[in-house]
Amino acid sequence: MVFKVTVNSAWRATRTLWLLVLVSLSVCICVCRASSPQEDSAMENIVTEKKAEESHRQDSADLLIFILLLTLTILTIWLFKHRRFRFLHETGLAMIYGLLVGVVLRYGIHVPRDISNATLGCPVNASPATLLINVSGKFYEYTLKGEINANEVDNVQDNEMLRKVTFDPEVFFNILLPPIIFHAGYSLKRRHFFRNMGSILAYAFLGTVISCFVIGLLMYGCVMLMKQVGQLGGDFFFTDCLFFGAIVSATDPVTVLAIFNELQVDVDLYALLFGESVLNDAVALVLSSSIVAYQPQGDNSHTFEGTAMLKSFGIFLGVFSGSFALGVATGIVTALISFFTKLRDFQLLETALFFLMSWSTFLLAEACGFTGVVAVLFCGITQAHYTFNNLSPDSQDRTKQLFELLNFLAENFIFSYMGLTLFTFQNHVFNPMFIVGAFVAVFLGRAANIYPLSFLLNLGRRNKIRSNFQHMMMFAGLRGAMTFALSIRDTATYARQMMFSTTLLVVFFTVWICGGGTTQMLSCQRIRYKTSNSTFSVFAQMSITEGPERRSTKQESAWLFRIWYNFDHNYLKPILTHSGPPLTATLPPCCGPLARFLTSPQAYENECQLKDDDSDLILTDGDINLTYGDITVSTDASGAHTSGGAAFAGAATSDDLDRELTYGDHELVMRGTRLCVNATTSYFVDVQYITGVL
Amino acid sequence: MVFKVTVNSAWRATRTLWLLVLVSLSVCICVCRASSPQEDSAMENIVTEKKAEESHRQDSADLLIFILLLTLTILTIWLFKHRRFRFLHETGLAMIYGLLVGVVLRYGIHVPRDISNATLGCPVNASPATLLINVSGKFYEYTLKGEINANEVDNVQDNEMLRKVTFDPEVFFNILLPPIIFHAGYSLKRRHFFRNMGSILAYAFLGTVISCFVIGLLMYGCVMLMKQVGQLGGDFFFTDCLFFGAIVSATDPVTVLAIFNELQVDVDLYALLFGESVLNDAVALVLSSSIVAYQPQGDNSHTFEGTAMLKSFGIFLGVFSGSFALGVATGIVTALISFFTKLRDFQLLETALFFLMSWSTFLLAEACGFTGVVAVLFCGITQAHYTFNNLSPDSQDRTKQLFELLNFLAENFIFSYMGLTLFTFQNHVFNPMFIVGAFVAVFLGRAANIYPLSFLLNLGRRNKIRSNFQHMMMFAGLRGAMTFALSIRDTATYARQMMFSTTLLVVFFTVWICGGGTTQMLSCQRIRYKTSNSTFSVFAQMSITEGPERRSTKQESAWLFRIWYNFDHNYLKPILTHSGPPLTATLPPCCGPLARFLTSPQAYENECQLKDDDSDLILTDGDINLTYGDITVSTDASGAHTSGGAAFAGAATSDDLDRELTYGDHELVMRGTRLCVNATTSYFVDVQYITGVL
Repeated sequence: MVFKVTVNSAWRATRTLWLLVLVSLSVCICVCRASSPQEDSAMENIVTEKKAEESHRQDSADLLIFILLLTLTILTIWLFKHRRFRFLHETGLAMIYGLLVGVVLRYGIHVPRDISNATLGCPVNASPATLLINVSGKFYEYTLKGEINANEVDNVQDNEMLRKVTFDPEVFFNILLPPIIFHAGYSLKRRHFFRNMGSILAYAFLGTVISCFVIGLLMYGCVMLMKQVGQLGGDFFFTDCLFFGAIVSATDPVTVLAIFNELQVDVDLYALLFGESVLNDAVALVLSSSIVAYQPQGDNSHTFEGTAMLKSFGIFLGVFSGSFALGVATGIVTALISFFTKLRDFQLLETALFFLMSWSTFLLAEACGFTGVVAVLFCGITQAHYTFNNLSPDSQDRTKQLFELLNFLAENFIFSYMGLTLFTFQNHVFNPMFIVGAFVAVFLGRAANIYPLSFLLNLGRRNKIRSNFQHMMMFAGLRGAMTFALSIRDTATYARQMMFSTTLLVVFFTVWICGGGTTQMLSCQRIRYKTSNSTFSVFAQMSITEGPERRSTKQESAWLFRIWYNFDHNYLKPILTHSGPPLTATLPPCCGPLARFLTSPQAYENECQLKDDDSDLILTDGDINLTYGDITVSTDASGAHTSGGAAFAGAATSDDLDRELTYGDHELVMRGTRLCVNATTSYFVDVQYITGVL
Repeated sequence: MVFKVTVNSAWRATRTLWLLVLVSLSVCICVCRASSPQEDSAMENIVTEKKAEESHRQDSADLLIFILLLTLTILTIWLFKHRRFRFLHETGLAMIYGLLVGVVLRYGIHVPRDISNATLGCPVNASPATLLINVSGKFYEYTLKGEINANEVDNVQDNEMLRKVTFDPEVFFNILLPPIIFHAGYSLKRRHFFRNMGSILAYAFLGTVISCFVIGLLMYGCVMLMKQVGQLGGDFFFTDCLFFGAIVSATDPVTVLAIFNELQVDVDLYALLFGESVLNDAVALVLSSSIVAYQPQGDNSHTFEGTAMLKSFGIFLGVFSGSFALGVATGIVTALISFFTKLRDFQLLETALFFLMSWSTFLLAEACGFTGVVAVLFCGITQAHYTFNNLSPDSQDRTKQLFELLNFLAENFIFSYMGLTLFTFQNHVFNPMFIVGAFVAVFLGRAANIYPLSFLLNLGRRNKIRSNFQHMMMFAGLRGAMTFALSIRDTATYARQMMFSTTLLVVFFTVWICGGGTTQMLSCQRIRYKTSNSTFSVFAQMSITEGPERRSTKQESAWLFRIWYNFDHNYLKPILTHSGPPLTATLPPCCGPLARFLTSPQAYENECQLKDDDSDLILTDGDINLTYGDITVSTDASGAHTSGGAAFAGAATSDDLDRELTYGDHELVMRGTRLCVNATTSYFVDVQYITGVL
């Protein structure tokens, strides 16, 4: 009976879904068609108003197309999750729907050509930002939209429709990317990230630079070859090649990580991939803008010049560190505000403040000439590490859920727009040689990033990055939102147009093929994961035999981790949050009065209760669920409050700790709860031991 | 000791706050100053790019000002709530901060005049939407921003700074108003709204039209007088007067309702005010656009003409009913989707779908030429009434919190922009006679709405609207976001500019004076409320003596309520939600197969458990907290699931029910819980009794 009901409802759902697909598509097409005519009976003096209204209606209809696309994507994702299909992630799906609508817009709809868009013939010698036009006594104001390529001028009037569904590329950087990147930073609050920090920084900084230069050099070779063969239709300089290298070095393994999370794959691998991808977006972004800023003196503007290169390097350092500092600063200001005020009594105010402060980071960085997206990333990390602890449990949920939603919407929007743009973008340059060269270069660039760096890192790491992990990291180098946003930002020249078209193909290929093959790759590389049916690892045997080796993760990259951890734990946490130990205990006695002034009353309670409240580090496996899982969102908040202290007190020896970490989160919580019972007995000894070790 | 800590932290908080105020103001001013120069060393071929970058930085800085303003507002609100100041609501505060920043921008900052904004002298005979300018071989694209008044042309180049902090008025209608109005609709799920539906509709429709015409006629008299005296500097037609009447008829008692909620004032008064203000926004909006659409034939374009008026009336009906139908339709589609799919297992998808569907209502309405804001209002009401019941508890919280946050941000943004615009708007026309006339007209218009309608309604109502309630409704007629948005939408002519300036003053006056005096007015009118210290009413004595009179609320406006309720409860709820009785029980036996097909398995469970699940009607007093209170947000969700059925089963006789409703929510929950114990005994009799009564 129960089975019958389920089947029946699933069948009904499928039918409803496809009905909806049809209805939505026809609605969006009807709207597109309907909103064009109806301009005949207009009176002369309200023509302008009518036009503005018409344009507004057209804009609404265009946006509606995307909203309906996202709705369809959501419904189909649901169906896939319901049926446990794992071969296609929601982002891949969004791209497919985007492609379909792109085809319809391109070939299905013919809009009558609007002849009123006149080209002004009169000669002017400047292009001001605002223009006033005197039309028979009336003044109209025009704003500069941008430069148009000379050979496109005729196209401007054609395909008005297609141009209208094309967004200003800056929309990506100012509206869609910030929530995605902030969310990535905000969900990066994980012990494994900080423990693998050295490796992650190496992959993100060195690796991205290596990848950028390897791809750049290979592409330069390819371009030289194309010039020889006579396949190059325009200029393509070495800086363009480097720029291409930078933009395709930004990896975005959102698909892979979603599957990792669902399958509860090894947490170290997860941390390495997640940390690398989050940071290398920022590196690639700043790198690409420094390459654009490379401007040698004089007329020979595409030759090598030492000072210009140094200047580019300086810009890279300056912009990156400036954005970093700004992001961290606003994060700390937010933490201080929530520390000193009792905003936690008013959750709405608290959430609003958190949202506004995070947004202001972006705006402040942009206004100062830094990179808003990078600032937002580090702001997110700081907020997660400090401010999050000062928020009320309700606001913790609210902020997580809010940014989760924004991230979801923005990401799927970008991916469906990607699909759409393959057909609606008017200046595609598909060059087979360049495309083949790019695929090879992307593959080799990723390899030159992962394998040599892993080898070098393994020299220093006790917990080696095994070869199957390396292959998996190689495989998981998908390209996504950031690569797309960077490549669509400027499509004015021939070189940039060719890059954009090629980048689109790279993104499609990696998201569909690499993203879809993750489960197979995991099995093939014999990387442990849990299926959703059995709670325990399929390769449990293997993980237990690996015990002795894994036990030593504690000391791994310890020099960096330990210094940072001590400073953070003893000074920053007590000053910025309610969760650290009181400053009176950590500062030297001479600073007594200052310490007493800065310590919150709650910190003393913390001391009485538990000396080392590391709930943010211990419970971080639970966070994975919250970050990517759609099902169990409330785990973190309740978990953090019920079992945070106890789990730590119980699992306090270093070996215990490591063993905890090798298992998934479910087991951790279970163990934590079980250990609550006998936690009180071994409490003081354990805590002292830890304080000694760290 | 505890007291000392509190005082200390409050003092520290105050100090921090004012430090922050100073720092933020100086930061925002620095940014404004800093982001203007730095254009000297630009190379010639990247001047355009530089300019675009410059403009982007300026935009970021402008937006940053508003973000910082909102942050300051939040911090100060917190301080006020902390200290229990009730004389100034957050919206009033936002206006004050807006005023301050407006003064600074106007008088404190001098931006070097940008001489590159040239006026094109060459004659063209059209104003196309897109313009291509050929500047020495390069083509630049310009988009039409709007017409500029001839006497403003010289001003355009001055005060570039002030013009830049001026938003496109359409931003209000397309970005800021929709979440506010949707939130109003979404939180309107209250028994008292539906029970007072007749009166609310009368106030909202008849009342707004009366108010519009009374104000219009009075203003026309005032304008005629001004013309006699020679104080009128431009055209001002009767349609302008009516337009003014329409825009100042949109009341927005958000301040008053926040205080009502805090003080737990009489629920019927709350429902009347809330319902009226929500609906009359929609009426005023459509009314004003129909007045604008009044276009008599021929040249005599401002005389009376029957056909044109009929056309206007037709537009009003068409647009209103079209928007209504669209809003309800999308609401129902969302309810059906959430009914037929099992999206509730994936809260993120569910919330995203809810958000997207609600947004698409707006876009669809705009694309079809209806009014998006009105559609969104009715979509919100439908979502609250049907879809809300199908959502998982987690998504219920998420959606409520999301729209609560958006509403909060948008509202405070609008109010702070209002304050700012008093100084930054460049074409103010302050005419003392017009202003005095407007204040008198607004007062009389409100009176002509409330008192006669209340008298007529009281003829039909058994539960009379008492005179102190009438006075309170008169007093609570604040003007807010909608009035402002309507008046700033078009400020091209002299008449519209004068209206805008006057409207600003009306809004300031009503929000500060009427909003601030609510508590005093309540005491003065001897309207029952609870202070935050005592749980029971100060006027408890009074409410008990009023028992016999109030008991009859049940039958009040029953004819409308009963018809609607029966249809909704027996047919719509079962088809659209999981919460109604099974259709097999409510449809006639001949429709058996259809009923079985449409009934969800859950409905049968409902039948076994409780025949009449009116949790959405019974627990609505709890909703007030959720809607406006910042503290107890989770009451609704948990309450609805624990005490919904039991409370109803226990409090089932009509008299009991009425008595419940005269008390506040706290008491209701207590009583509900207490009654759980003996609920089972009297269960079947009670339910049958109710089904008979309704």
